[in-house]
Amino acid sequence: VETRISLARRAAVLAPALSASEEAHTIAFDSGHAFPGILPDMTAAAERALTDYRTETLQYGARPGVPEMREWVAGYLNADGARTSAQEVLMTNGAKHAIELVCRLLLDEGDAIIVTAPTYYTAIPLFRSYGATFIEVGQDSEGIDLDAIEERITWLKQEGRRLPKFIYNVPDFHNPTGVTMPRGRREALVGLAARHGMFVVEDSPYRKIRFEGQDEPSLKALDQDGCVLAVGTFSKLLAPGLRVGWVVAPPDLLQRMALLKSDGGSSPLLQRIVLEFCKTGGLEAHTLVARTTYRTHRDHMVRAVRRDLPDATMTVPHGGYYLWLTLPRHIDGDELAKRAKENGVSIFPGSKFYAGQNDDYPRNKVPPKNNIRLNFSHATPEEIDEGVRRLSFAYATVARQTGDAREKAWVAPSA
Amino acid sequence: VETRISLARRAAVLAPALSASEEAHTIAFDSGHAFPGILPDMTAAAERALTDYRTETLQYGARPGVPEMREWVAGYLNADGARTSAQEVLMTNGAKHAIELVCRLLLDEGDAIIVTAPTYYTAIPLFRSYGATFIEVGQDSEGIDLDAIEERITWLKQEGRRLPKFIYNVPDFHNPTGVTMPRGRREALVGLAARHGMFVVEDSPYRKIRFEGQDEPSLKALDQDGCVLAVGTFSKLLAPGLRVGWVVAPPDLLQRMALLKSDGGSSPLLQRIVLEFCKTGGLEAHTLVARTTYRTHRDHMVRAVRRDLPDATMTVPHGGYYLWLTLPRHIDGDELAKRAKENGVSIFPGSKFYAGQNDDYPRNKVPPKNNIRLNFSHATPEEIDEGVRRLSFAYATVARQTGDAREKAWVAPSA
Repeated sequence: VETRISLARRAAVLAPALSASEEAHTIAFDSGHAFPGILPDMTAAAERALTDYRTETLQYGARPGVPEMREWVAGYLNADGARTSAQEVLMTNGAKHAIELVCRLLLDEGDAIIVTAPTYYTAIPLFRSYGATFIEVGQDSEGIDLDAIEERITWLKQEGRRLPKFIYNVPDFHNPTGVTMPRGRREALVGLAARHGMFVVEDSPYRKIRFEGQDEPSLKALDQDGCVLAVGTFSKLLAPGLRVGWVVAPPDLLQRMALLKSDGGSSPLLQRIVLEFCKTGGLEAHTLVARTTYRTHRDHMVRAVRRDLPDATMTVPHGGYYLWLTLPRHIDGDELAKRAKENGVSIFPGSKFYAGQNDDYPRNKVPPKNNIRLNFSHATPEEIDEGVRRLSFAYATVARQTGDAREKAWVAPSA
Repeated sequence: VETRISLARRAAVLAPALSASEEAHTIAFDSGHAFPGILPDMTAAAERALTDYRTETLQYGARPGVPEMREWVAGYLNADGARTSAQEVLMTNGAKHAIELVCRLLLDEGDAIIVTAPTYYTAIPLFRSYGATFIEVGQDSEGIDLDAIEERITWLKQEGRRLPKFIYNVPDFHNPTGVTMPRGRREALVGLAARHGMFVVEDSPYRKIRFEGQDEPSLKALDQDGCVLAVGTFSKLLAPGLRVGWVVAPPDLLQRMALLKSDGGSSPLLQRIVLEFCKTGGLEAHTLVARTTYRTHRDHMVRAVRRDLPDATMTVPHGGYYLWLTLPRHIDGDELAKRAKENGVSIFPGSKFYAGQNDDYPRNKVPPKNNIRLNFSHATPEEIDEGVRRLSFAYATVARQTGDAREKAWVAPSA
């Protein structure tokens, strides 16, 4: 049969597999997986869901989600400074499904959106598959560059073009850079969006995985104008396999997104299992376990990088799952990732996190090549040591190949 | 904030809620829900999934699905005459998610698709939200009218227009009409699609809910050219709340659809629960229970309709969940549904099942108004009796209002 694929879909540069490397002996620093050692025991919650709540959990659920689950999420967010209600919470099949529903609601082919450079790599092909044009703006140590957004908006207006539909951002422990925006920058971002009639899509899966320091207010908590669409998930708090997430949106937009859900109501069984686990204090307890575990993992990886990759610079993140390393300018992250794989450790090159500017703005920049992202959540501390050691060998090879003078100063780490 | 909704999405006439009516005292004939009395006990399967398979079920799953689940589905389909393999099975969040992925893969704004008139109502807004133009063709007692398809294709070619991307059809116990296509018509349909380079989307959720007669071969089993995309689900066999379905497609198309999944791998927990239930014989046993139960429900409803709605004609379906009633030509199904609701029984008017022709074909027909669909799966036999009785009162009112001569001959059923 003649295969006539959708043009938009054919044009999309599609996402690679998500999985941590399953190859034997390869240490996976390239995933967003949980540490297997702390996956929670959810059997009691599942038992209750499938007995006490059988009629609820095995029939079609309401499209917006299980009512008690929506209430619970609203309460959870309000305890974190938001002022929302169950009517504004739409349950989804994980955060990516929430982002997809936002795209389905807002994007027409060719619409512009604003993302950071770099940005969350899985969102890139999703946005692209809905026809988005990317406006990439940089970040500093306080997050997304608002001057760059204003500059671009001024240019778009001069050119008589439509403004972007939304700004997509990860304000807490940004993926991949680890940057957390302070309050002032957050207020300015929300204000800018409201002023220009754009939405902000706040994607904050790592917010509760904070190792030190105080929480900054969520963008949603600062939102006076209903311009923040807040995406959340249990994936990074409990377990990625649950596929239970949400988006908080004004009721009129939520109704439209609910109608665009093709899932016949995200599984009420999964929602009820999560809910029963949360109601009995499971989430609170598990969040503490995750924080403690991942802080240890982070500390381990930071030490290992300082020891074995002294050329790399990094800002130690106060939470989240990732280290973002900046290597000397002549080091190609793609080449390093290839070499690392050969040496038995999988990493993501920084290039993966750039959406690519596909408009004709005259001051578009070429993204740097000398970054890599390392995940520290999934591997054991021992694997982290060994993985960074393997990475250092790959680094030595790449540095040698590039023939830079610095290579001569390279000292291989002690084996 | 200025709300600029996607044009395509704004244009969509969106789907109503799926739920069986939750209003107290209303008998729900308007759902696709399972009978609550036979919802299976899946606690043992969930226990195994969350203990023995914890690392699999609580981490991200592979995008195409849990490998053993894909194997199982392939085996299940092959036992039913297909010749497929795990590599051709993509697991989804229910059948609607599978249909959505087909749309994402194949449809560009304005592309034509062929549907029956009437067709599955939930699919209509889904197709429309992806910009589909509908070509509606009729059915007879053997299913979709192939002459009408050929006639339309000839016209499209004369006009120099692009052919439809796919034919969407429910070949077994068609929703809503209950028609099952015999082998000959199936062969001709698949042959026609292959000849014109179109796909057939075979949506067959009710196939195993057969009360009498022999299975006809699935379209997939007759497919020589890889033109059939077969959508399946556990919703009608086990429980709708599971949200586990699949689509069978050639590997190259499957890979593309897998990449278009935004769900980070449909929940491996749900897949494993279903799989453990199936592996221990649960599906086979439950299918028998469902068949027996729904046959009883059907028989009950057929008797009640013959007794209390003697003006209605119907073809008794050999399986599935629904009765499709044809009322005298002057009876307006929308009006009847409204009246029925007031009388405490919710039904779907036939008008809900017409996509609406939105092209400029000169011989487009106006859909009839005198049909209604009754669901018999969800209510108890007692509720079926009472619901049909209530419906008959609503019918008497509507018939009286229309002032037709036939109304004089109407005899109210015994109370």
